[in-house]
Amino acid sequence: MAKRIPLEKKVLSENDRLASELAERFAAARVLAVNLLSSPGAGKTSLLEETARRLGTELRLAAVEGDLATDRDARRLRAAGLPTRQINTGRGCHLSARQVADALSDFDGDGRPLDLEALDILFIENVGNLVCPAQFHLGERQRVVVSSTPEGDDKPLKYPVAFESADCVVLNKVDLLEATLFSCEAFRRYVRGLAPRAPILELSCRTGAGLDAWLNWLREERQAARKGRGLADSI
Amino acid sequence: MAKRIPLEKKVLSENDRLASELAERFAAARVLAVNLLSSPGAGKTSLLEETARRLGTELRLAAVEGDLATDRDARRLRAAGLPTRQINTGRGCHLSARQVADALSDFDGDGRPLDLEALDILFIENVGNLVCPAQFHLGERQRVVVSSTPEGDDKPLKYPVAFESADCVVLNKVDLLEATLFSCEAFRRYVRGLAPRAPILELSCRTGAGLDAWLNWLREERQAARKGRGLADSI
Repeated sequence: MAKRIPLEKKVLSENDRLASELAERFAAARVLAVNLLSSPGAGKTSLLEETARRLGTELRLAAVEGDLATDRDARRLRAAGLPTRQINTGRGCHLSARQVADALSDFDGDGRPLDLEALDILFIENVGNLVCPAQFHLGERQRVVVSSTPEGDDKPLKYPVAFESADCVVLNKVDLLEATLFSCEAFRRYVRGLAPRAPILELSCRTGAGLDAWLNWLREERQAARKGRGLADSI
Repeated sequence: MAKRIPLEKKVLSENDRLASELAERFAAARVLAVNLLSSPGAGKTSLLEETARRLGTELRLAAVEGDLATDRDARRLRAAGLPTRQINTGRGCHLSARQVADALSDFDGDGRPLDLEALDILFIENVGNLVCPAQFHLGERQRVVVSSTPEGDDKPLKYPVAFESADCVVLNKVDLLEATLFSCEAFRRYVRGLAPRAPILELSCRTGAGLDAWLNWLREERQAARKGRGLADSI
């Protein structure tokens, strides 16, 4: 095991180098890249479906979708009108910057790259895992951690690495609040201790409650990306 | 990256060696070791709380509890009467056989080992992660994958590595079935495709529904472990 840490560092730094290249490409194209992290089943795909349905005529959107297996989520997103490239990781527990770069270079599976210049927002839906993806930057300008009420309000405390890296925290499935033992006040307090500046957006993809605040956050971040504001912070 | 696969194999085989040692120790003590895997918030700790409350006077139980951070779950289990050793993994995405062996050697934090001979069942609650823990054997005789209805019925398809390694699948939070879009029939079909022989136990830790079948499964597996039945399969 003694050799493991240096190699892990090497893998991480190689990923960081590629992530920086991606960040530069996104900045040059003035596209907002959003990396979404969550537990399995917290609702990342549902959030992107609703986003595509509500924002798809106003902004030019695309997605890269990471899963161990199947193209179910990519098919869901395409059905919602979102051009999507599926990445299957097999046993891989996170997306890497290399995988994202390769997906952008061959976005349609026929060798055609995604035209970043023709895009407003690129969503990168990571593998459902609240641990490993937090340690791999993908060149994103904004990192969104999606949590959901049935998971319990203590998830920030138990998975601090993900939450402390969040630029925005989405709390999904608030329609199940009454059916669960979830304290929004406790959840907000725990998130505040790890990511003091991240907005916390409570919503339900199922009922649509709270989605407007999420769409407005995307619009504002899209504007900031277009103007190149705060870029130094994000790379 | 070319060096990564051999090293990963080396780490895995070192873990396998230690896991085999643990399996031999568990078999010699005729203790049933159960490794619980799930997404964050699926209900592993709640399941062990209810198990301790209902089975704690009948069988001698103990637990090893894996989390990135905090000892919240260990305190919950101790409050339910279950002697528990917390392991904090930091950024670690799974428990290793080494961590379990160390926890057993120093079970109370004062250097006293757990007496396996005086035990009927040892629960090992893994880090909440449906990807990485599946690849690290911990010497367990039975591996239980806990899923929950709000996560969606397609989790077996999207996380096949965990489900295909399951000896038993628990579907928790069936009290939320009506509030979610979850098909028990689809879930069962997907699990069957990956783990044809694993029982699928639908239950709710909150209402207590279905817990009897889980307790009976534990009793039967405890009996089998005591008699040493099927041991060759489990190592």
